[in-house]
Amino acid sequence: MEKLNVAILGATGAVGQRFIQLLENHPWFQVAELVGKSSAGQRYGDAVNWVLDSNPPASVLDIVIKPLDSELDSTLVFSALPKEAAVEREPALAAAGHIVCTNASAHRMADDVPLLLPEVNHEHIALIDVQRKNRGWTTGALIANSNCTTMPIVMALAPLKQFNISKMLVVSEQALSGAGYPGVPSLDVIDNIIPYVSGDEGKMETETLKMLGTFVDGKIEYYESTVSATATRVPVIDGHMINMSISMDDAPSMEDILQAWANYETPPEIAMLPSAPEHPVQYLPQIDRPQPRRDRMAGNGMTTSIGRLRECPILGYKFAALAHNTIRGAAGCSILNAELLAVKGYIPNFQPQIAQNALT
Amino acid sequence: MEKLNVAILGATGAVGQRFIQLLENHPWFQVAELVGKSSAGQRYGDAVNWVLDSNPPASVLDIVIKPLDSELDSTLVFSALPKEAAVEREPALAAAGHIVCTNASAHRMADDVPLLLPEVNHEHIALIDVQRKNRGWTTGALIANSNCTTMPIVMALAPLKQFNISKMLVVSEQALSGAGYPGVPSLDVIDNIIPYVSGDEGKMETETLKMLGTFVDGKIEYYESTVSATATRVPVIDGHMINMSISMDDAPSMEDILQAWANYETPPEIAMLPSAPEHPVQYLPQIDRPQPRRDRMAGNGMTTSIGRLRECPILGYKFAALAHNTIRGAAGCSILNAELLAVKGYIPNFQPQIAQNALT
Amino acid sequence: MEKLNVAILGATGAVGQRFIQLLENHPWFQVAELVGKSSAGQRYGDAVNWVLDSNPPASVLDIVIKPLDSELDSTLVFSALPKEAAVEREPALAAAGHIVCTNASAHRMADDVPLLLPEVNHEHIALIDVQRKNRGWTTGALIANSNCTTMPIVMALAPLKQFNISKMLVVSEQALSGAGYPGVPSLDVIDNIIPYVSGDEGKMETETLKMLGTFVDGKIEYYESTVSATATRVPVIDGHMINMSISMDDAPSMEDILQAWANYETPPEIAMLPSAPEHPVQYLPQIDRPQPRRDRMAGNGMTTSIGRLRECPILGYKFAALAHNTIRGAAGCSILNAELLAVKGYIPNFQPQIAQNALT
Amino acid sequence: MEKLNVAILGATGAVGQRFIQLLENHPWFQVAELVGKSSAGQRYGDAVNWVLDSNPPASVLDIVIKPLDSELDSTLVFSALPKEAAVEREPALAAAGHIVCTNASAHRMADDVPLLLPEVNHEHIALIDVQRKNRGWTTGALIANSNCTTMPIVMALAPLKQFNISKMLVVSEQALSGAGYPGVPSLDVIDNIIPYVSGDEGKMETETLKMLGTFVDGKIEYYESTVSATATRVPVIDGHMINMSISMDDAPSMEDILQAWANYETPPEIAMLPSAPEHPVQYLPQIDRPQPRRDRMAGNGMTTSIGRLRECPILGYKFAALAHNTIRGAAGCSILNAELLAVKGYIPNFQPQIAQNALT
Repeated sequence: MEKLNVAILGATGAVGQRFIQLLENHPWFQVAELVGKSSAGQRYGDAVNWVLDSNPPASVLDIVIKPLDSELDSTLVFSALPKEAAVEREPALAAAGHIVCTNASAHRMADDVPLLLPEVNHEHIALIDVQRKNRGWTTGALIANSNCTTMPIVMALAPLKQFNISKMLVVSEQALSGAGYPGVPSLDVIDNIIPYVSGDEGKMETETLKMLGTFVDGKIEYYESTVSATATRVPVIDGHMINMSISMDDAPSMEDILQAWANYETPPEIAMLPSAPEHPVQYLPQIDRPQPRRDRMAGNGMTTSIGRLRECPILGYKFAALAHNTIRGAAGCSILNAELLAVKGYIPNFQPQIAQNALT
Repeated sequence: MEKLNVAILGATGAVGQRFIQLLENHPWFQVAELVGKSSAGQRYGDAVNWVLDSNPPASVLDIVIKPLDSELDSTLVFSALPKEAAVEREPALAAAGHIVCTNASAHRMADDVPLLLPEVNHEHIALIDVQRKNRGWTTGALIANSNCTTMPIVMALAPLKQFNISKMLVVSEQALSGAGYPGVPSLDVIDNIIPYVSGDEGKMETETLKMLGTFVDGKIEYYESTVSATATRVPVIDGHMINMSISMDDAPSMEDILQAWANYETPPEIAMLPSAPEHPVQYLPQIDRPQPRRDRMAGNGMTTSIGRLRECPILGYKFAALAHNTIRGAAGCSILNAELLAVKGYIPNFQPQIAQNALT
Repeated sequence: MEKLNVAILGATGAVGQRFIQLLENHPWFQVAELVGKSSAGQRYGDAVNWVLDSNPPASVLDIVIKPLDSELDSTLVFSALPKEAAVEREPALAAAGHIVCTNASAHRMADDVPLLLPEVNHEHIALIDVQRKNRGWTTGALIANSNCTTMPIVMALAPLKQFNISKMLVVSEQALSGAGYPGVPSLDVIDNIIPYVSGDEGKMETETLKMLGTFVDGKIEYYESTVSATATRVPVIDGHMINMSISMDDAPSMEDILQAWANYETPPEIAMLPSAPEHPVQYLPQIDRPQPRRDRMAGNGMTTSIGRLRECPILGYKFAALAHNTIRGAAGCSILNAELLAVKGYIPNFQPQIAQNALT
Repeated sequence: MEKLNVAILGATGAVGQRFIQLLENHPWFQVAELVGKSSAGQRYGDAVNWVLDSNPPASVLDIVIKPLDSELDSTLVFSALPKEAAVEREPALAAAGHIVCTNASAHRMADDVPLLLPEVNHEHIALIDVQRKNRGWTTGALIANSNCTTMPIVMALAPLKQFNISKMLVVSEQALSGAGYPGVPSLDVIDNIIPYVSGDEGKMETETLKMLGTFVDGKIEYYESTVSATATRVPVIDGHMINMSISMDDAPSMEDILQAWANYETPPEIAMLPSAPEHPVQYLPQIDRPQPRRDRMAGNGMTTSIGRLRECPILGYKFAALAHNTIRGAAGCSILNAELLAVKGYIPNFQPQIAQNALT
């Protein structure tokens, strides 16, 4: 099978780098075009200030970065653009026929944009047909993944949806990479924490309900629940921790909840995707887990780790959940989304072989 | 005025060191006796591994540490003993006529032991008379200060008691010094947080209600409210942050709450105490405060800083509170407690002069 | 005595903030004018992102920041400008009659600019007369303090100059505040160190020899020695550590060296200055000191702490030295320099009273 | 090929854990016996406080830990014992016929114990025959790897031996994992560094010369050079950085040095070993590298990264070197040593197949 060429928008930023790192040796996709704003015209190897471990893969060093408004050859486009740049550019690319999988927040809450977390709401993908009809797009589409702090909330709660969650009170302890690069100055966060993350509390309170919602009659019916979010920043490189207290109308037992997490099964068509983890959620029995440094790489950074389930005398139950914010909460999720689109036939002229077999 | 000699139990530990640091140059008290277990018989200067800034004060270096079961000359005794050592030794000293101000948890929840935070519940001091009667003590007494994480909860909520707080959901981000020394290994907490602090959640859920309670008919009627606590550890040296969501039956406005904090007045007999801060609570208007490193030393480490008041769609209001855990939350509070006891005449043969004037 | 009004250039930056903090309650000087570039026209309280502990002093909040090219009323000007802005503006102000005490590197190595560390080279102040003559200035002057990493090297070695130091090999472990604000991104330095600090190695190799030099015949004869510097950045907020190995022609004994540090006396006219520490250097006998967090505030941040003197099988002796980089290594030194200028009569129409007495 | 069963002494400690982690899925060896002191008699899964990422491999959880003085079935034994325990137990096991590859310091400097770093001094393996003769051992042997801070010094300098290095002045910035677990208390090292690491300076000054030495006439002739070492501790999880200045009698050019590193070739019989990195050393051209967090995992933690080569005005040249202290500097090196012993036929009744082919 020939690999599909893909483009990355915002390729020199922190999330753009993570896209490049995760796509290195990807079985279906290969990075062919890199797009940037201030870096346009430079070799990627010269332009990038690589902030991840080690060095950028040799395969991208010589790619010359294209300007933001370039026409692109790649059908599949991953976007790590800042919100402001995404507002106009992403729909323009979709209108021009590209499949745009974006990590930007600009269009997440639009009625006809799926906010996709494949194990949880793969059926939201049907919104693409609505989107194309609404906007007059033929082969293009715009698919978003959620805010990086919303993501572990949704993944931990999806198995519990069945119990009718009426209230979700969450307090995050977020990693520094969530703020991009240069991001949080070290003088602000050594021997310190910051009880505020600009914009995140609102996203956690709205995106969660859309993602847990149901696709009905051509639109997403939001999950009915009340979310109260507090976002804080801690001196951790990667891995967002969420402390959650929830109320559930159906009053499950503690055992019911543990079973729901243990039995949470990924549909086979998703489990077979190259970036899908074996377990989307895992429950850790140790009393002091999950921990960011020790658990963020579970499932190659794609598994959400849960721990410390216990009764909450106010809301019912409380527990902690952790996910890798720039893998599962950003670039990794966007790639998984694109893999799902591929097997579902949404990417024109590209059908991955493995999917052919597995879907029969 | 001649200063009163005091003894410190557990003098080489982290809290013991903070007692020594805070008592250096104290206007009423002077350190005369140091007591320890494994360090007994050594010069303090030889025995101590000083973990605070700089070096131990010259005045204590040559004091020879007495064994734990020594008879003590000092009427006033500060205890930084571990719980196990405190169980028997503290009441024994009180029975022998000593005023024991303890930071240990061993006796905090005993019915006749005041859990004292002077600005909040100075009237609980009357429990000493009950205690003496119960236990047959004449001039001795045992007075506790709270757990270091409970303390900022109580201080931030005391001004709001008037609105009838029915629910308190708190998530802490606690500093490393709360675990003593050697305490948390660095390998556990660099680039990491730990979602568990042994024993603290229970203390936060019980001590809070005792401290906010009322002295009636010789006992403390606990404040009626439900507390749900989550305790986490973060890589911060000093300063415990509490994220709180609360329900209040009287549904005050946001302005009411801000006014309650702004107008929270210390009774004059407490405001005059040497260790009392000018403001027991302060509200910081900046969107990203309080922060441990920047705000822990407010009021010489004795002021609790509050910020980020906003509506909580589930419980009513939410905000953050921060206090210095080894000053206001431990040794500093114990010293303030002793100062209150002194002006109230509970320390035999010692009446500080300043109090005489100020109380008229 | 009426206090002297002073101006601060670059007042919103990290070093500018430290000037303001240290000048609050200064006995001789009071902040009257604040000067900035992008912040000009705003209230200081609105413009500043205060990065030090607590909050900016109330006394400066309402001062409206003046543009960089403003005429200033204050005779004494402290400069925390970036190098580029300092190049032209500082001499222009001196030419206009101002005494400019600068922390910028722009003019440090100019032949007629004193690089002043009062305890070490107060006689370099005579260079001001040369400077005025050279440049046609009458009452104005330009006086620099050194790079923050050079400073502890010079202070630790000044007492050993007498032994004829022929080689100085230094490896620094520098704090984050040395890079200003926002400075080093947290993603670069949590669980990490950086073996490179732009520009500092060169400054350490040249400024050291000028500062240790001698004023002879109207110019500074540089100290004759070879310096090899390696600069690294570590995740510490404040306090630069220097690991030094040195060769001395006179081959002193270890005891000679310890005595030289112990006996290093500040001339009385400097010891009396308000910002002068009781001991410019102190030797710590503990095997694991100095340490940045524990020793940086020695002498209110103005004392250099030395430790671990031992033989170096290659160069002779080795030891560690530590100083607070934004106090003694920047703003605090600049203020001490201005105090020296004041008592020496270099500030027109201002003679501090205390000096009058002390000098008799 | 059947895998060879191996035993791990000190299996619950930090280095013991790293042995287990690195041996999981090893092509030749499999963990069969675990040995401990206080943990003896417990299931490994119950006894271990796993401090590495994620969780211990499932394959070892049910192994019951044997007491320290147990007879062992495994011919090959890896030791992560503390020095005190190693003194007697390691030679006793070798005397009983075991091949003991140890990370302990107890016997490193014994005349007949090879201090092995295969790429650098594989010929020292011949010392085993001397050892057996000296001690009357038949099939057993005791082979040590070096101190974790010595290791990057030796690896970086081995390619330069040819230029006759006469002086080596090194200043380390060492990671926390070098102190084991619990090791360095977090209160000692957050916002701080410690200018002292117990015992390491001496090891760096002696082990280096043994490792760079030559096997002649049945013994190691030490490399002739003078080493001056300073050891400091920094808040980094893994990865020891060494700042080095060196003198070389043959005065190579900078290009000569870079070539020596680039051309440093591993003998084929070592390059084929399963744990051997493709490049034992790599030179990073970026001005601010190597960095611990970004470069410690180069070559799966087995490659030493070098950077910042420049002239030293005192000694000739200076540069920085970095290696992963618990992989290449401890367990990983010990495993590589055992692999070398296997292909060289020193492990009775075990000959790995791959080696058979590769050696022809």
